[in-house]
Formats: sequence, structure tokens, C-alpha cells
Amino acid sequence: MMIINTEMSQSEDEEINMAAWILGVKNLSIQPYPLPSLGPHDVKIRIKAVGICGSDVHYYKTMRCANFIANKPMVLGHECAGIIQELGTQVQSLAVGDRVALEPGISCQTCNFCKGGRYNLCRRMKFFGSASTHTHGSLANMVVHPANLCFKLPDNVSLEEGAMIEPLSVGVHACRRANISPDTNVLIIGAGPIGLVVSLAARAFGSPRIVMVDVDNTRLSIAKDLGADETILVSTSIQDMEKEVVQIQNAMRSKIHVSFDCVGYNKTMSTSLNVSTSGGKVCLIGLAQTEMTVPLTPAAAREVDVIGIFRYRNTWPLCIELLRTGKIDIKPLISHRFGFSQKELEEAFETSAQGGNAIKIMFNL
Amino acid sequence: MMIINTEMSQSEDEEINMAAWILGVKNLSIQPYPLPSLGPHDVKIRIKAVGICGSDVHYYKTMRCANFIANKPMVLGHECAGIIQELGTQVQSLAVGDRVALEPGISCQTCNFCKGGRYNLCRRMKFFGSASTHTHGSLANMVVHPANLCFKLPDNVSLEEGAMIEPLSVGVHACRRANISPDTNVLIIGAGPIGLVVSLAARAFGSPRIVMVDVDNTRLSIAKDLGADETILVSTSIQDMEKEVVQIQNAMRSKIHVSFDCVGYNKTMSTSLNVSTSGGKVCLIGLAQTEMTVPLTPAAAREVDVIGIFRYRNTWPLCIELLRTGKIDIKPLISHRFGFSQKELEEAFETSAQGGNAIKIMFNL
Amino acid sequence: MMIINTEMSQSEDEEINMAAWILGVKNLSIQPYPLPSLGPHDVKIRIKAVGICGSDVHYYKTMRCANFIANKPMVLGHECAGIIQELGTQVQSLAVGDRVALEPGISCQTCNFCKGGRYNLCRRMKFFGSASTHTHGSLANMVVHPANLCFKLPDNVSLEEGAMIEPLSVGVHACRRANISPDTNVLIIGAGPIGLVVSLAARAFGSPRIVMVDVDNTRLSIAKDLGADETILVSTSIQDMEKEVVQIQNAMRSKIHVSFDCVGYNKTMSTSLNVSTSGGKVCLIGLAQTEMTVPLTPAAAREVDVIGIFRYRNTWPLCIELLRTGKIDIKPLISHRFGFSQKELEEAFETSAQGGNAIKIMFNL
Amino acid sequence: MMIINTEMSQSEDEEINMAAWILGVKNLSIQPYPLPSLGPHDVKIRIKAVGICGSDVHYYKTMRCANFIANKPMVLGHECAGIIQELGTQVQSLAVGDRVALEPGISCQTCNFCKGGRYNLCRRMKFFGSASTHTHGSLANMVVHPANLCFKLPDNVSLEEGAMIEPLSVGVHACRRANISPDTNVLIIGAGPIGLVVSLAARAFGSPRIVMVDVDNTRLSIAKDLGADETILVSTSIQDMEKEVVQIQNAMRSKIHVSFDCVGYNKTMSTSLNVSTSGGKVCLIGLAQTEMTVPLTPAAAREVDVIGIFRYRNTWPLCIELLRTGKIDIKPLISHRFGFSQKELEEAFETSAQGGNAIKIMFNL
Repeated sequence: MMIINTEMSQSEDEEINMAAWILGVKNLSIQPYPLPSLGPHDVKIRIKAVGICGSDVHYYKTMRCANFIANKPMVLGHECAGIIQELGTQVQSLAVGDRVALEPGISCQTCNFCKGGRYNLCRRMKFFGSASTHTHGSLANMVVHPANLCFKLPDNVSLEEGAMIEPLSVGVHACRRANISPDTNVLIIGAGPIGLVVSLAARAFGSPRIVMVDVDNTRLSIAKDLGADETILVSTSIQDMEKEVVQIQNAMRSKIHVSFDCVGYNKTMSTSLNVSTSGGKVCLIGLAQTEMTVPLTPAAAREVDVIGIFRYRNTWPLCIELLRTGKIDIKPLISHRFGFSQKELEEAFETSAQGGNAIKIMFNL
Repeated sequence: MMIINTEMSQSEDEEINMAAWILGVKNLSIQPYPLPSLGPHDVKIRIKAVGICGSDVHYYKTMRCANFIANKPMVLGHECAGIIQELGTQVQSLAVGDRVALEPGISCQTCNFCKGGRYNLCRRMKFFGSASTHTHGSLANMVVHPANLCFKLPDNVSLEEGAMIEPLSVGVHACRRANISPDTNVLIIGAGPIGLVVSLAARAFGSPRIVMVDVDNTRLSIAKDLGADETILVSTSIQDMEKEVVQIQNAMRSKIHVSFDCVGYNKTMSTSLNVSTSGGKVCLIGLAQTEMTVPLTPAAAREVDVIGIFRYRNTWPLCIELLRTGKIDIKPLISHRFGFSQKELEEAFETSAQGGNAIKIMFNL
Repeated sequence: MMIINTEMSQSEDEEINMAAWILGVKNLSIQPYPLPSLGPHDVKIRIKAVGICGSDVHYYKTMRCANFIANKPMVLGHECAGIIQELGTQVQSLAVGDRVALEPGISCQTCNFCKGGRYNLCRRMKFFGSASTHTHGSLANMVVHPANLCFKLPDNVSLEEGAMIEPLSVGVHACRRANISPDTNVLIIGAGPIGLVVSLAARAFGSPRIVMVDVDNTRLSIAKDLGADETILVSTSIQDMEKEVVQIQNAMRSKIHVSFDCVGYNKTMSTSLNVSTSGGKVCLIGLAQTEMTVPLTPAAAREVDVIGIFRYRNTWPLCIELLRTGKIDIKPLISHRFGFSQKELEEAFETSAQGGNAIKIMFNL
Repeated sequence: MMIINTEMSQSEDEEINMAAWILGVKNLSIQPYPLPSLGPHDVKIRIKAVGICGSDVHYYKTMRCANFIANKPMVLGHECAGIIQELGTQVQSLAVGDRVALEPGISCQTCNFCKGGRYNLCRRMKFFGSASTHTHGSLANMVVHPANLCFKLPDNVSLEEGAMIEPLSVGVHACRRANISPDTNVLIIGAGPIGLVVSLAARAFGSPRIVMVDVDNTRLSIAKDLGADETILVSTSIQDMEKEVVQIQNAMRSKIHVSFDCVGYNKTMSTSLNVSTSGGKVCLIGLAQTEMTVPLTPAAAREVDVIGIFRYRNTWPLCIELLRTGKIDIKPLISHRFGFSQKELEEAFETSAQGGNAIKIMFNL
């Protein structure tokens, strides 16, 4: 274990930790954020890169995300990486100065889900910047986090790439659950950030054919650049579905074993169910609609299964390996970069909220 | 291989084979049914017991079943057992006089589904009494069938029980796909024949807690007699769902790991999705509705998977073992018995069409 | 949370906690055992029932077990159940007075094995009465243990049965890993305590045919009483193997899908490999020999896999359910009972060390 | 379906079909081979490329392979591809002139293994050039084979690559059984043809780290060229094992999740068992020794499973896809090419028998 230079440590203590607080709808403010004390198994991390996620934008626009309501000020952000600043007394796996990516959710470790290896389903999960447990986020100069959720980055993986491991993890978890392999031809509906990380992960898992579908040609062009074999522009009208199903099947030129619905509308899910081969799978990731009207029984009668996804589990080591070996290049997904000032903070969230051609917006702190 | 007595064989040839033909809506007739020639790998079976399935009743009422239309006369029936009468030249696994249960679907054996062990999904399947390929059924004195689809019954398993293996197979296949074990608490929605065979199979696969739900108290009472731990009477109104979800969870007194929807309505599927534990499964067997409006995304976001079922595969040997060892007693499901006369044929189908307290109607030929 | 009566608590504090220490080879002594302080997530349990395990006997005879050497006095025992006496400040899942069974191993919760749900492979596991980490055991009046490893017993499950969950867990874990179901015919070699719990678990998992093999007729007779379909007396001579393989296959009268070698000698493992069907599994639980000379390649060339077992994971809730529902009756395995005095302690271990007709020896404290 | 030109067909009939017969030890002869008649589901193929397999060389050297004895003349060869010459009356999936790779084993399609999707374990398998059923091989101008075992090659996959699908299939099947994915670091012991196809397949299945081990530096250099991350020269002495285990672990710089023993000696298997991580797998492919003396129990006690492999199943479509997309380049494995004359036949087998620097020897017919 390294000895921390006392002077530096002292100046650290004196530094006022600043964070990005959501105070109300479209009301963000960089304000002091007093850190909790450092537990024996925790580390203090100086955050260097934070990405904006769709859930952050939901809070920004509405103070809520899914069923969770931010009814008091909260620090946002959970896609992050940084440099270890201080170690809890029992921490041996890390050293001050280590560059690390942070897994944002702290699970209870003792419920049946945690003990059974499905800790992402833990009901007591404390997750960076989530109103479900009112846990503060990581868009801050400094955070305290359990050492076992901080993963050391190899020299050839940057801190920005480290922050991108969080969204990439969604793709990796989806591919693991859907059992993607060289035996699996993949359809991805939705070429936003999630669709793109699913395509990158599916390729890394060996999928030989990936077709991507979206309503936006710019997104499809990025998808093609990132490696999709074919892309198809579709409409939002359910009337076009039958025709588009044929188009998609023709583009695949083989069976569609797994369809990822990264959008979650009646039409995208219906397309997924209809287009997949008997015995195949539809992996539902997008959550646009709650109640869905879809042809579920004809799909069930062809043994097309529907697989659900919640976040990820045990993905950081694999993602680091995929980035280290170059199996996945995640950098092209970063479309915008901002500094950590009040002005840039507002600009970044406004850019994200407007959608447009932003894929992933990254803060450099 | 046994030598067939020539005289008997001759008299066999002279016997006119009679079968139950569907000629039109509610128009059944026992008429001659000339058998196809006996191939080298086929056997001729004298049918002794045939059950009526829901799909038979669909043809009876409407001349169609799902998308398949019986546009010319067809022999009905596919749940059957009988006695081997004659062997094809290459058949070594069976002997004349063997009592056998018949698996009704002849798959192509050469497509990817067949080679991969999922032959129930074979698109070229020829299935007894199905208009999809216009294949004649087995409600007949005699049928010709491949030897590898005829399974010898042990002495302590009756021919009626042999005929019941077909519906039981649906329950067994569903339990295999849903991975039922002592670790799985099971909810079954719908206490008709399918719900009942699922409950019997789930118990045989070790499920420690089985709760069954129906809108009919008589069915629930049968379900209880057959071994359900708890039964709950529900309504058909979606308004009651929230209350019923709590009732069901209270009745289980533990997590619900797998829900079988043996009905297939918006309400039954919505209940299944809402009531199942995070990380659990809903197995959709009933097909009442095609388009379904259900809360699919909240379930997916708890990693509740939806598993589809089509018929069964490789279930006859296991079902025979379950009957032989007494792990499953299938006899109580036979609620009515009829002989094979024109009058009884009509009476049997009419009884079945009216529903009422019929579970399984069996012909003895 | 219950309030602990102060007077009782005080008298508790004054009570001197006594435990069974191993001081040297065949040198056991009941001596004071000062408890560690109660952490916020711990409970204090008054131990009421403790079984003797084979590993305890190894320490008794040799001061070592496998590679682990007890080089200083250690409290023995790890199969136990008791009554909650005191709660740590954060414990909400249990109450004083609860009857609980204890899972003996405390895993680190943060390594890849723990996070991935295979915590039994955790290298930092602290296990009751194990010299590997010199962790004291539970053959004591009182122990302190994490609340999440104490499982409340239903009213119809006794404390002795609670203590038996530990050995039963080995059988349950083996059956889970070997994927035992109604599709699996099972051979068990060795009818000692482990073979017997495997047979009970295999039955609960739905195995339709269980054949057991041993060199001792008394053990086989117990195995038969506990539900084995057939038992076969074999020799220790490898010369007899070929003949015995035929005997075993005849006794099964069907394919052997999974063989459990609960002994671990060249002969038992060779028999297991030779007797199992192509595509089957051999589950190696017994560890009698380290280097084994076995026909591994012919088995591999029939895709017979060898599955290894280390202890268990996540088995307590299932075992409690199996005992509660009567799917498993574990009580007949308790062959001897002793009180917790110096004299009875010595007598119990000596009885166990001599083998003979002892199956499970239980202390009542 | 194409109409076969009558004149060509006639000249075909007149052509004398020649094949490579094994007549005795080291006694090969190109002699006439009358083809069986063309069944309705068969095709006649003009063979263009045939590779020599280790089993062919066993017959060449000893007239036997494993337990199978070639006690009368037999046509050798089973790694092959060619051009469709004639179609059986029922064949619709292929056309005359199609370039196809042949899967060499004809399974019974009706046993439990075949129906369950594990047809490679079928006991009635008829396999090209195997003495087990005395089935003639495919080193011939022409063969007759079931259409469903002939797989059309895309334009960018050559007939030689088509012939290489057979050995590649072993690697693919092994990777499927061992569940290779981006989560799996792989050790391969033995850098001969099998080790090399395993490494190519493991890479295609996403393995991030592949270390290969052999006793021959030339082989290791080829392994490195084909993509192994690290290679290690080892000895044949068991004395060196402990040291080499450390070397291998250091070379991997991470856990070894799956070890493929492509040799099958005490030392290679012991190394595999010792070097693999707890919870990992050893896949035993090489069959050099029958009885093996190996530390099986310590591995089992760390839940290291041993997975057996027999040939392959359902691999041709995937292999074609892997070759088509360039995920695997199999051509570098072809080290020698020979024509189909008596002289070259002898030369080719002699080269193969002497080992040396031959990897795969290919006949062009």
C-alpha cells in the first residue's frame, strides 16, 4: 500500500469538492458536494471523465426517470472514470494514482440475487445519480466508492474510454443474456447509443451478420461506419411493418436468430417478434412504452423467447479486455466534449436534450 | 422379428379401415379410410384409445385451427395409442402385439431444426389430423406410422394412459423449457387440461409450491385434487388484476419464479408478467389472443423472460417413465369415455364443444 | 426488532462460552472460547445441534485435513443450528429467539467468484473449523456469525434437521451441477453419508431411477430403506470391474445419465466413466485418491463429462423448503446422539473415527 | 431443379470411378470403385479436394484406428469437397454444378441421440472411410452422399477450403462445448492440426487471450503466425510440469478459463488440470493414452470440469460462414498438395506418416 504524501493530502482536504446538482427542471448548478467519510474498503477518486446518459437527461427535463422522482437536489452522473486519490485502510487491490473506471451500482451483497450472481437485480442497489435511493452521482471533482467497484485501466485505455465502459456494459450484458456467438445473426432496431454498443458487443461476441434499423439516416450511417453489415431506413408507421419485415429478412440473407429492440415501441417490438426465426430470441432493451400491443402469441408459438435486460453485471473486466485488445473501439461514439464549468454544463445537457446528432457527450474534468 | 400369421394378415387386409372424418362444420362421419402402404420403417397400428384435443374441437366447430383451414375432408385425432399389427421390413425395435403410444408428428429429419434437436419447429412436419399439411389423423381403426414414433408401453401403463401422453407432453416440454426444478415456485393460470398437465409435470420436476388460478371453481377443485398447493378464483375483469396479483403472491408465500399462462389473454399475461419475481420467467402456452396488450417493458426491466412453447419434442420416453413409476397419475384427467360409433362420435364432440365439466374425452376403439 | 431483556442479556454476558477444541491428535477438550465482538450485521447464536463431518474426524485423527494443518488449537465443527440470542445493530431479517440453521462459510463478497455467484470458490472464504484460514468452528455453546448466513427454520423443521442441512447441501449442489431432473437416471457409488444425501437430493430433483453401489451390505440396506431403486454389492478389486459394470447396467435397465463417485478411488472413478452413457456425466465428489489412473480418453471420446464439486452455494433456502415440504426426510441419517460433555465428546469422535455403522453423529447442546 | 444434359450424363455413366483403396499396411492402390445407386435424397458428387486426416494415416500404418480394424480393402478419406454431378429425384436444395463441402457421417436420424440433436453420438453412424461400419471413404473421383450432408460453398470459399471444414469442425465443436466467448482465456496444448483449428475457432468465438504450448518450435512458430498471443516450448518430461505451469500462467497474465488438451498424455492432461482456474474447464480432445494417471480430484475439488469431444455436429453452416466472412483463414494450414495418381498417393501418405513439417496434406482431384 502506498503512503500518501501528507502535504498533498492536506491540500486535498482543503479543496472544496464541486459537483453538478440537479435542482429542478432544467436547473443545473455546480455547487459544493461534501463527500462522505472514507470507509476501510473505499477509495477516493478524482473524477476525470463523465458521460451523459439518457437517464441523466430525463432528470434534467422532468426531475424524474421511469418511476423515480428526484424530489430534492441530487448530484447527477454515473458513467465515469478517474484517478485514485486516497485508499481506505483495508484496500490492497489498488494504489494511489491508479487510473480506474467505476461501476456505479453498490449492491447489498447479501440478498439472494447478489449471492446468486445476479446482483443487478438487487433491490437495495445504491446507484450513482439515481432517485430510486436518492444516491448522489459522480459528475463531481471527487467521489468516494468501494474499491471493488473501481477497475484499473491498462495503459492503452484512456479515461474517456473508461467512462464509456458503463454504456458498453449494457451491450455486453445484453449479448451475454442473448447468448450471442458466431452462430447468431443479429438484428438491432435503433441506432442510438444503446443500439451502437449492442452492435459493437455483438461483433466482439462473434456475430457474423449484423443488420441495423433506424428512422434516421445519419444514425444509420454511423452504424455502418461502426461495422453493421447492412442498415435499413424504416418509418414510424406500423402500416409499413409488413414490407419492412421482408426488407430486413432480405438484408440478412439468412435466419435472424436474435433481435435487439433498443427502442421499445409497439412497432419495433412487433417487428422484432415477426422477423425473428422460430426458436430465436428478442431482447427487449428500449423502454419507450410501458403497455405494449404486440403479436406475442404467434411468436411464442414459434418458440421465439423474449429476454429482458436490466443494466449489467460483472462487465467491467470484460469491457476493459475488449478495449485493451482492440476488439472494440468505443472512441467514435464520443461525439461532443465539454469542460466542467456552469456554462458548459448547461450547454452539454441542452445539446443532449435536443438529441440531434449527439451520440455520447463527455465531460472532461 | 416376428412372423405374421398369414391368415390373420389376410383377414386384416380384407377388413375395411374406418375413421372419423370431418366433412364440414359440425359434420363428422365414420367412413372408410384407405391406409397408405407400409414403408420399410413403418408399422401398422390398431388404434385402441384416442383423446379429443382442443384443436380437434376447433376443426369441428369452424373447419379451421389457428391459420390452418380444412378445405377438404380430413380424418381427425392425434392423441392415441394402440397395438402393433404389422411391421415394415426394416423394423427391429418393435414386435407385433406391442402396446404403443404414438407421437403424432413426422418431422423431416434433415432441416437445421431437426438436426439441432428442436424438431418440433420443423416446417415440414406432418402432424396427425392437421390441416397445415392436410395430414390425416388417428381417430381410426388402423393407422400407418414410422416405427421410431411408436413407443412401447410398460405393462403397468394402459392404452388410455398411452393416449394421454400427447397432452402430458405439452406440460413436460413447457417444464423443460422453463427449467422447472425444486428451486422453482410455479404459478399456473388456467386449470383446463393444459394447466393440469403443466401442474402434474411441474410437480414431477420437483417444484415445491404450485398455485393455480382460474375463473371456474369446479376446475380449481380438480386442480386442488390433482395436487396444487393453493388455488385462487379470479375474474375476467382487468380491473381486478392488481388485487389478484396480491392474492396470488400471498398464496405463494414466496417468490414466483415461473408463471405459466395457459390461457393467453391480455389479463392472464399481464398478471403473469406482474406477479413473477425479478429474474423469473413467464411461459406462454395459451393462445387465446393474437395481438396482446401487456406491460412487457416493466417486466423486461426486471429481467422477467417470456418463453414460448410449440408442442413438444423427445417427451414420450420421459412421459412413459413418469407414468410407469407413478410420479404422475394421468388417469383422473379422463372425465368422459365414448365408443367409436357415429352416434357416440357426435355426442363426444358435442360434449367437448360445450366445455362444461369435461376435462379429457377419450374414445375406446 | 425485539428488545433484549437486560437481565437475561447480563447473565448471558457472564456465562462462560465453552467450545470443543482440538489440541492435538486424538486430543479434544471442552474449554472456554471467548467470542469475537458482535458486528452490526452479525448475530449471536446459541448452538443447539452440531453434526460431526468427515473433515472433523480427519483433524481428530491427524490434525490435518487435505493440505490444511491445524498447527494450533482450534474449535471444531461446522454442521450446526441454534437459536438467535442477540442481534447486531443493523440486523432486521432475524429476531431473538429465531431457530436458525447456519451456513458455515463466510465469503469475501467482492472477488469475481463471489460477484459471479460461485462464492463457494472464493479463495478468502472463512469456514467454521477449518485450518485453511484457522477459523474456529461451531461446536460451542455460542457463536457469532453474519445474519445473512443464518436461515430461519419453519416450525416443522427441527434444529437437528437444521444441522443436517450442511451435509444435505453437498447433495443438492451436486445435483444442481449435474443437472439432475426426471430425465436423469442416476448411479451413486458409495453409500456413506455423502452418497445418501446425493440419493435423497437426486430423488427430490426428480430422478426416476437410482442405483447405489457399495462394498458394505449394511450401508446398502440403509440406502435401500432411504429410497434407492436397486443396490449392488461390489468389491474393492479392479479385477471385478468389468463384471460389475454389466451388473450395474442390468440393474438400471436403462441408460445411466449421471454417475456420482462419492468415493474417489481408481476403481470407483473407472467404473463411473465406463458405465455412463455417451453424452452423460460423472460427478466426482469423493476425494480418496489424489492421482488417479482412469480410462479418461475413451470416456471423453463418448462425450462423458467429469463434473467437479466443492462444497455448495445458495443451498440453505432450498434445503429448508425440501425439509418443510417433506420432499426429503433427513432424520433417518442421524444414527447416534451425544451430549456436550468432555466424556461424550471423546466418545462421539471415537465412534466416528471407528466408522462401523455410524452414519451421522449429532451433538445436542 | 436443373435438367441434366443427357449426353454428359451418359458419358458420366461410362466413366470408371476410381478411388484410393487401403489393401494392407502401407499398401494403397487406386482402383475402380463402383458407386452405390443414387437414392431419391442423394446426390452424386465429383470430388475435387480431399485432405489426409490422422485417422487415415493410422489405417495406412496399421490397418486400424482406435478399436476399429480394416479387415478388408476399404476406400480411405473423409475431408472433402466437390461439385454436384447428379441429383436424386427428391433433391430440391441443390443443383448440378453446385460446389459443396461434404459432412462425412450419416447418422440414423431416429435414435435418441439423433432426435435430441447430439447425432455425433449416434451408434449407427456410417462415416466415410471408417472401419467401424466398414463404410468406404471419399478419396475417389465420385461419391454418392445424402443431399442434406452436402453444403453449398459461397463463391469466395474454394473447394480446398471446403475440404478443410471437416478438421475445422473439430475446433468449432470443441469451442461450442467449452462455451468459448470473449469471457474465456484459452490454453491450447499441442500445436498440430487440431490445436491449430481450435485456436482459429477460439479466436472466432471471441477468446481474448490464447496461449499455445508444444514440444516443437516449428509448430509453435506456425501457431504464432496463425494468431496465438503467446507460445511456450515445453518438454515431454513430467518433471518439468511444475515449472511449466508457472510459465504458462505467467504467459497468460490472467486466469486460464479453458484448457484444450489436443494431445492426451498424462503430462498434457495433468498440466491442463493444474493450470486452469477454479471453476474452469479442461477440454480433452487428444487421445494418445487410454488409461491416464492424472490429478483429477484436486481439480474436481476446484470445480474444474473435464469436457469430452467426439467429432462434431451441425458445424458445416457455421464453418462456411466463418470462411465466407474471413473470420477464419484456414488456407495457411494446407502445407502440401498432391495430385490423384498412384505415385502421388503413396508419396502423400508417406509424407504424412513421417510427420515432420506437414500440417495438412491436400489432394486435388
